[in-house]
Amino acid sequence: VELLYETARAVSPLDAAAMADARSRQARLTKPPGALGVLEELSVQLSGIAGACPPPRAEPAAVVVFAADHGVHAQGVTGWPQEVTAQMVANFVAGGAAVNVLARRAGADVSVVDVGVAADLAPAAGPVDGPVDGQRDRLVDRKVRRGTRDMTLEPAMTRAEAVEAVEIGIEVARERVEGGVRCLLTGDMGIANTTASAALISAFTGVDVTEATGRGTGADDATWRRKVSAVERALARPAGPEPLAVLASVGGLEHAALAGLILGAAAHRVPVVLDGVIAGAAALVVRALCPQALDYCVAGHRSAEAGHAVALDALGLRPLVDLDLRLGEGSGAVLALPLVQSSIAVLGEMATFDSAGVTDKTQPSKTQPS
Amino acid sequence: VELLYETARAVSPLDAAAMADARSRQARLTKPPGALGVLEELSVQLSGIAGACPPPRAEPAAVVVFAADHGVHAQGVTGWPQEVTAQMVANFVAGGAAVNVLARRAGADVSVVDVGVAADLAPAAGPVDGPVDGQRDRLVDRKVRRGTRDMTLEPAMTRAEAVEAVEIGIEVARERVEGGVRCLLTGDMGIANTTASAALISAFTGVDVTEATGRGTGADDATWRRKVSAVERALARPAGPEPLAVLASVGGLEHAALAGLILGAAAHRVPVVLDGVIAGAAALVVRALCPQALDYCVAGHRSAEAGHAVALDALGLRPLVDLDLRLGEGSGAVLALPLVQSSIAVLGEMATFDSAGVTDKTQPSKTQPS
Repeated sequence: VELLYETARAVSPLDAAAMADARSRQARLTKPPGALGVLEELSVQLSGIAGACPPPRAEPAAVVVFAADHGVHAQGVTGWPQEVTAQMVANFVAGGAAVNVLARRAGADVSVVDVGVAADLAPAAGPVDGPVDGQRDRLVDRKVRRGTRDMTLEPAMTRAEAVEAVEIGIEVARERVEGGVRCLLTGDMGIANTTASAALISAFTGVDVTEATGRGTGADDATWRRKVSAVERALARPAGPEPLAVLASVGGLEHAALAGLILGAAAHRVPVVLDGVIAGAAALVVRALCPQALDYCVAGHRSAEAGHAVALDALGLRPLVDLDLRLGEGSGAVLALPLVQSSIAVLGEMATFDSAGVTDKTQPSKTQPS
Repeated sequence: VELLYETARAVSPLDAAAMADARSRQARLTKPPGALGVLEELSVQLSGIAGACPPPRAEPAAVVVFAADHGVHAQGVTGWPQEVTAQMVANFVAGGAAVNVLARRAGADVSVVDVGVAADLAPAAGPVDGPVDGQRDRLVDRKVRRGTRDMTLEPAMTRAEAVEAVEIGIEVARERVEGGVRCLLTGDMGIANTTASAALISAFTGVDVTEATGRGTGADDATWRRKVSAVERALARPAGPEPLAVLASVGGLEHAALAGLILGAAAHRVPVVLDGVIAGAAALVVRALCPQALDYCVAGHRSAEAGHAVALDALGLRPLVDLDLRLGEGSGAVLALPLVQSSIAVLGEMATFDSAGVTDKTQPSKTQPS
């Protein structure tokens, strides 16, 4: 647990001087003040993260898809068989999933980190940790265990397993940043992981389980009721107030790893674009461990899954994209990446009123024609 | 007016067979049905527009910024001096405005068409109709007149002037499509043009002027009241029910040209991504002239300007981006372009359940493992 605490301690506040520079520069660009709305605030945040105005381009960008299975699958919380987790990992490695297609368009790297898939992946899914078919998509084996335990019967993870998964996320963030990555995006794959997300969101925000629990990738009424019941039974078992104990009790291995990725990104002063409800649940763990790290987060989108809006509200994050997506994988984060990069381009490349000879009504004495 | 009517008659329904193919293909892709939300509907629409599934990539894409001035500026409806229209055209030509920066990032072409700037542009703004500084940004002189008349005193345009501007838009669409463009984006520049937009929106939807009138690029309370009063006075003068008469009475030359661009795009079966409130007002003119053409429109974003939400509701369009932008120029349309292109990439490039060997719970008999 030393790496975790060390990383949390390394997270420092955003750079106030760079943020002030960004606000002042935004006011001089050839547009009415505030006319680029959320993109202006985003450019200020990104300047604060990098400690520079304009900040470096958020390139290269890398999606990390953490994959894991969930013991609670046994409670009938989803219509998808558990094998689909491993099948989709193979699909990611082959470059055929939505996140691969979207990442290719956005110029982002995709890698898959197995932190707990309940199957042996390497032979079925292609070469471990190497480039596949000319793409940079990779499969990294960091399996902590073959799926979590069934949280309705016992804690999903031991505290040691949860910490191990968090620290894997921290290490992956460090490796990516050392490899030159300047923007991290969260991805996830794990059949039944919206159930664990609902439990984390209800536990960390206090909202009722029925409010935190959505239909995932398409649950019918009966499945949804089983999902709510499973979350309620898991939360009925006292875990204590300690964030890592709550994570271990009802979370998933991918939630733990994503929390680590966020902490690691923040410690390295690199922005992290959050995908949907799984990332939102992981970010609530981060809020409890190290609230400062949330300053390094950008909410890529708001998913259609009920608990995600609850999580975003609690995190105080405004999503960039809001298109009723409910796929996961990192798809919503990747769709937001061009908006993140555009906000930086505007700050760095637009002309100022002075340089372009445009009259600024907010500074009539400076550039007003006679 | 022959070209206008001919173009409207050339607009045909979306291709139902291609749309059915797209829906069926979406259901076979390796994701839960509907999990990509609005992007799936968009891919179906784009297939219907092109008459092909998957549709061709929406590349090259071109933003056309129609620039014009407004006689109603004399009523004190904005704090910005009228010269800013011409100054911003020069900024576009030099590549320093927000739309240039965003279009470079998105890989889109920018051209500026002067349909009514109240100044002589060519000497001040650079070479006419040629590439500037290695960029493709161009200035095209199609000036109908030096700004509209003051709509509070008399019709802003004669019917002939309005028709001329609409037909310029149609011709520009044809030229761009003949030049290989496969996606058009609307842009606009014209100090005071949110006032004319409010008048068009109120006239075509029937909402109260106060609901249709926003603060543009930053009007204070007194300016906003003058803006509302100007719109009310203009609308008090009967224009008759004929859409072109309403357009001539209270519209702008850029609104007319944008209506033409939309009609032309639809006639050539090319999608047109609408920017903000100016494009929304122009699309209401199109709805009155040729409602079928709206099937070829994609709402790029919802601007913070009050009347835009009213226009989008009336048009039945859901915006892709919603980030409190209120800049115009085409900035919101360009920010939506990666989403449009991503929806096509997903349809064309994702693996199917069969090809990837992933179990499809919606088709248990086909791929369910034993």
